[in-house]
Amino acid sequence: MNSTIELLKSHRSIRKFTDRKIPHELLLELIRAGQAAATSSHVQAYSVIHVKDPANRELIAELAGGQTYVATASDFLVFCADMKRPTEASERTGANVVRGMTEQLLVASVDTALMAQNVAIAAESEGLGICYIGGIRNNPQAISDLLRLPEHVYPVFGMCLGYPAHEPDVKPRLPVEAILKEDYYTDDSELVAVFDEAMQTYYGQRKGGNKETNWSRNLTPLFDSKLRAHMREFLTKRGFEMK
Amino acid sequence: MNSTIELLKSHRSIRKFTDRKIPHELLLELIRAGQAAATSSHVQAYSVIHVKDPANRELIAELAGGQTYVATASDFLVFCADMKRPTEASERTGANVVRGMTEQLLVASVDTALMAQNVAIAAESEGLGICYIGGIRNNPQAISDLLRLPEHVYPVFGMCLGYPAHEPDVKPRLPVEAILKEDYYTDDSELVAVFDEAMQTYYGQRKGGNKETNWSRNLTPLFDSKLRAHMREFLTKRGFEMK
Repeated sequence: MNSTIELLKSHRSIRKFTDRKIPHELLLELIRAGQAAATSSHVQAYSVIHVKDPANRELIAELAGGQTYVATASDFLVFCADMKRPTEASERTGANVVRGMTEQLLVASVDTALMAQNVAIAAESEGLGICYIGGIRNNPQAISDLLRLPEHVYPVFGMCLGYPAHEPDVKPRLPVEAILKEDYYTDDSELVAVFDEAMQTYYGQRKGGNKETNWSRNLTPLFDSKLRAHMREFLTKRGFEMK
Repeated sequence: MNSTIELLKSHRSIRKFTDRKIPHELLLELIRAGQAAATSSHVQAYSVIHVKDPANRELIAELAGGQTYVATASDFLVFCADMKRPTEASERTGANVVRGMTEQLLVASVDTALMAQNVAIAAESEGLGICYIGGIRNNPQAISDLLRLPEHVYPVFGMCLGYPAHEPDVKPRLPVEAILKEDYYTDDSELVAVFDEAMQTYYGQRKGGNKETNWSRNLTPLFDSKLRAHMREFLTKRGFEMK
């Protein structure tokens, strides 16, 4: 196992940060590393908002569900899927541009995620810790207003970055045999059961952990209600109509 | 710039491969590195189909638009957004599961992309080359049938992996100042114009390159028609109704 793979496998979300600030030149370097990720047909369908205003940081921390580290991390970035730039660039060359296709939502969301993951890895390679903030989709319209996002741009997730002030465990993952399938999709419920046992042990051993829970049980809040039911209407209003 | 950031910044798609095969243990290690990526609420909403059958490789190469390297690379993976595993796991614990939310499509697609990008970086750190294959979305139903994907699973993209037999240039990216914005979204069309000039020079200097094109002009085929207009109906049929 080389040192890069070792780095990848040591990822854990960091939510407590020291006061040390990330130098601006390093932040730029992380974004450049992000941009080097593969991008569908070179479209580079993303923008990153570096939220510096402390009042906005506090507000986003609230809007994301009381995630205080959004305000306390050295830096907070909002990764946006951006179809405004490429469609307008194409229009300026005279193309009759079609917008709002489902395919375009996928391309922009995937492009943004590939880019962000490079930023995450670059950050961790420099000893920084990061935490993705999907919670910005709790209130995506308010976040969009705050960051003055135009049409055809939507906030996919945020990311806290800073120097770690704690050292959480690396969380176990599903067995690789469940994820990687040969030639055809196959049922993996038995491997999930094995993983549930492992996760129950893991949670039981953690200080203050719930000894009765496991992976499957922990998924309840994701699926037992229409979580973020506003996303459809929100995206449509932003010009991602999913045609 | 540390060696990991150097690696990230040296990415280029590889489409010609030597005959050397990736050892199976290394492939497993790449997938494990992928699984270590951040995942929304630990949901791990992805599966990877390792397409080994040579006839299926040939067929997918065709279905993806005649991308022969799908068949000639050492290995070909199809990265699938998988909401079947977590929703069924949640159901087995007694939860009343809601499916088909737009939010769930985003979570699964982003989870899959973060995971795949870790696989890509792990591969490149071992001297392998990779190429994402978005072209599998040209014929996503045929691909899904071929790989026997069940409902609530959809193929997001493929990835060719192997030992590089060519050394393409690293393709320039938009200026970092266009991507990274401070506090608010701002117009970047002037920076796009600068980038278009740089790309025109880049294409002009490439052997057989079109000296008249640039970034904006190259985007035309993405936007001047309803590219992959089937995606909406395809996803709906797979149980990703975008509610």
